[in-house]
Amino acid sequence: MNIKEAKLYVKNELTQERYNHTLRVADVAVDLAVKNRVNVKHAELAAIFHDVAKCWDKEKLKHWFMQSTLPNDLLNYHHELWHGPVGALFVKEKFDITNTDILNAIYYHTTGRAGMSKLELIIFVADYIEPGRDIPGVEDVRKKAWESLQEAGWMILSRTIKHLITKKATIHPETFFAYNDFARRLNRF
Amino acid sequence: MNIKEAKLYVKNELTQERYNHTLRVADVAVDLAVKNRVNVKHAELAAIFHDVAKCWDKEKLKHWFMQSTLPNDLLNYHHELWHGPVGALFVKEKFDITNTDILNAIYYHTTGRAGMSKLELIIFVADYIEPGRDIPGVEDVRKKAWESLQEAGWMILSRTIKHLITKKATIHPETFFAYNDFARRLNRF
Repeated sequence: MNIKEAKLYVKNELTQERYNHTLRVADVAVDLAVKNRVNVKHAELAAIFHDVAKCWDKEKLKHWFMQSTLPNDLLNYHHELWHGPVGALFVKEKFDITNTDILNAIYYHTTGRAGMSKLELIIFVADYIEPGRDIPGVEDVRKKAWESLQEAGWMILSRTIKHLITKKATIHPETFFAYNDFARRLNRF
Repeated sequence: MNIKEAKLYVKNELTQERYNHTLRVADVAVDLAVKNRVNVKHAELAAIFHDVAKCWDKEKLKHWFMQSTLPNDLLNYHHELWHGPVGALFVKEKFDITNTDILNAIYYHTTGRAGMSKLELIIFVADYIEPGRDIPGVEDVRKKAWESLQEAGWMILSRTIKHLITKKATIHPETFFAYNDFARRLNRF
């Protein structure tokens, strides 16, 4: 699967707005990959595909959970969390992408998880800081991302958890475990 | 075990300040038990014993973890979380207290957990709102506690998680699961 084919495919799967977001995530991911000595092609491919299932309707996403070994507990959490795991499984089956680091970067790009690889963290961070994002305080995270991927990841998790608490929303355990993982790593610095 | 004996015992185990806190928690717990139709004697006994192991040193607490079936994963979290589980096991063994609701109220009074009983919640809330506490925003929680134990529990968990994030501290999974449990219950109201 080359980048051009991947872009063509996701363009048809996404709204124009979501496709533009995807391209911006890919740009940031490539830069972060260069800086952090991660395979640039892997970062670009993971970024292009990270939201491949984002515009699918809830029923289609749910169907993928029910017909696969994806963990059904995710269905008890907000449907915004469903497209990562489904997208990872989809590109594995449709395009025979077998690199687990790329697949995990797509799978965990919304929730995060404990023990994220550099590539996973690059997609997680790039998705949050791409220049189209207007989240309060995003400038601080953007700045930190070029100093330390881990600190940027920790900032995103902290802010996301606080935001979800403010909304009285449930928080997926992977997000909690990712937070604890970074809290431990940062306290060791 | 009657209340008088329990008080005498913990008075010797605690500093004066901690003992005064314990008596205030017991007063609040009794009032909350009356209001929420929970066995008042159970609430008072759980409150008197909730901090029985609070003033033990870290090595003694750790020893109890190593020599028992208490989950050792707690040793990877802040030592402030150790005295609840150890205290519950201690009163079970020393005073033959076998009522699991009382034991769980002591065990989970710091972390909380998903599916807390009314008695567990009463001790958890009383510990936070007793009149000696000077935590920012505690007045709001005090007020809420007399309207809804669940909402007060949710407020405490939310504030505690936010506070721990600000300190870059790890958060025990039971606290996360308790938070999610209340977020689900409250969204159903």
